[in-house]
Amino acid sequence: MIDNSQLPTPNSQLISSLGEQGLLKLIQPYCLPHTIGDDGAVVRVRSECELVVTTDVLVDGVHFSDRTTSPYDVGWRSVAANLSDLAAMGAQPLGITVGLSLPPALPVVWLEQLYIGMRDCLARYGTGIVGGDLTRSTVTTVAITALGEVLPDRIIRRSMAQPGDAIVVTGYHGNSHAGLQILLDPELGKHLTATDREILIAAHQRPQPRLDILPLLVELSAGRVAGMDSSDGLADAIVQICRSSGVGANIERNRIPIDPALDRFDPNTALESALSGGEDFELVLTMPEPIAAQLVARLGVDAAIVGRITEGLEIVVVDSEDRSTSINFDLQSGFQHFSR
Amino acid sequence: MIDNSQLPTPNSQLISSLGEQGLLKLIQPYCLPHTIGDDGAVVRVRSECELVVTTDVLVDGVHFSDRTTSPYDVGWRSVAANLSDLAAMGAQPLGITVGLSLPPALPVVWLEQLYIGMRDCLARYGTGIVGGDLTRSTVTTVAITALGEVLPDRIIRRSMAQPGDAIVVTGYHGNSHAGLQILLDPELGKHLTATDREILIAAHQRPQPRLDILPLLVELSAGRVAGMDSSDGLADAIVQICRSSGVGANIERNRIPIDPALDRFDPNTALESALSGGEDFELVLTMPEPIAAQLVARLGVDAAIVGRITEGLEIVVVDSEDRSTSINFDLQSGFQHFSR
Repeated sequence: MIDNSQLPTPNSQLISSLGEQGLLKLIQPYCLPHTIGDDGAVVRVRSECELVVTTDVLVDGVHFSDRTTSPYDVGWRSVAANLSDLAAMGAQPLGITVGLSLPPALPVVWLEQLYIGMRDCLARYGTGIVGGDLTRSTVTTVAITALGEVLPDRIIRRSMAQPGDAIVVTGYHGNSHAGLQILLDPELGKHLTATDREILIAAHQRPQPRLDILPLLVELSAGRVAGMDSSDGLADAIVQICRSSGVGANIERNRIPIDPALDRFDPNTALESALSGGEDFELVLTMPEPIAAQLVARLGVDAAIVGRITEGLEIVVVDSEDRSTSINFDLQSGFQHFSR
Repeated sequence: MIDNSQLPTPNSQLISSLGEQGLLKLIQPYCLPHTIGDDGAVVRVRSECELVVTTDVLVDGVHFSDRTTSPYDVGWRSVAANLSDLAAMGAQPLGITVGLSLPPALPVVWLEQLYIGMRDCLARYGTGIVGGDLTRSTVTTVAITALGEVLPDRIIRRSMAQPGDAIVVTGYHGNSHAGLQILLDPELGKHLTATDREILIAAHQRPQPRLDILPLLVELSAGRVAGMDSSDGLADAIVQICRSSGVGANIERNRIPIDPALDRFDPNTALESALSGGEDFELVLTMPEPIAAQLVARLGVDAAIVGRITEGLEIVVVDSEDRSTSINFDLQSGFQHFSR
């Protein structure tokens, strides 16, 4: 997917040698036409639609590192995370802006690969870069704002879950976390086949935002759908939805889809990874049971109804023998950026 | 303007002690209601309008420092810069998103003051914060994306200047640059009155984006207006407009408005500061002469017609004795972030 023909600069050239004009020239081919050259970009929102806007900041050493993520994958992942937020709101993408802070000693080829990764992910979902800013810093930082549009009655919110709703997960959870572990310590994946390793690593490096769910919901006349994406983990998403909606949930532990590759990676931690791993960028949605059943049937083996929304504020996890187990849904998990 | 009643935290408390949940709780009061709590914010764009989007990244040590800019002013200036870009496109603000990267050892009070400064500037222009992201980093970075709306026939672009157009500047240039010099070395301002010093320093710390120009243009039925803001300096703006429009300009040096305070700061460098100082966040607009004359009459003493757009690609600066002088319009000025 990395098109090396677009890399005319020698690997050794540094950002500092180009100047801002040179950098802008370098970046321009990766932006949508007619969006550069003014103080802002003009974007058309369909007149009957609402605008949805979401922002993510990724920092070198916090959200990515050369050890586990190539610049191409930093680009892909940062775009995917933002498009996933749009999908979680029910919105189709209109474009992104990219605010970059770069150390002067960064190789130009790093920047090019970043943009190629962003462009490839954006192109897959029919959208592109409409604006941005570029400045020097001591640490590489990628701040992306994604813009989307959604018809008012198709907005997906965390707060709209109702007792009786089925809880749908749109795909496997835990793979991204396992992929990262393998990247950090390849020994951990030595017992796996190359295919299994690739599945888990790809989940980390090239997550696929679930914008494909939106036309399906339209097709199924889904009506009210609550939910969010699972960027901070499946358990966190369920907790957030329950908290926002003032409801509880019954989760059937054995119905949480586990990728066979994740199970082979470590059967003892597979469920825990699926619940708390994070960064799978799947959707966790609640909707009336019949719609949920049709959606899952359309999505295939990795999607599932994993439980039901209940009255009250308790989240109960049940195993196959119908024993209730308390899994520690730590409300703080995923929120430790500053104390880690 | 700084409301100290909103500062319940002791000065010594650090970002790292709050955790992300605590930080979100702290920030929430500064955001518009109903915008927090989902994966994205929902914003209404008037159905007949286009969306305008613009992004700026400000980095500690590059764009601001504790020496010259309080956290309140960092907030004010970063918002003002983005609203100025909207004004330069002819767009009314709909809201901003704030992507923050913060060192764990940053005092909480710094963050609060930043948000109060952002909120005060936004409130003055009838808008607010609709979303954002927050993460740790080794360097404080503020990435703002501003959203605005504009009727298609009122979009201001750099590329729309035509020969014969009058060139309007909406206010004094050079004051911000002089204010920064005084902040960096107070000795330089010792010969000024306190009022003069305050005028120059306020221009740097609390720039006023010229959103007030937009209803005036509507009132005057201005029609086609070209232009941009002068964030990189008045000279740079004229060069950019000429380049984008494929035209030249005749500038009358003596018609460039110079604040008496700037003249008293240093009469020898006042014009140079006005041309190349930057960060005044005024507008440089071109439009037919009769409209320009009415606009300047409405704006008062600090606005002026400083010249005319010409055919050809030359920019000529003329003095009061009608002698042509070549001022060095260095195309690279303002683009040296990486080589400075």
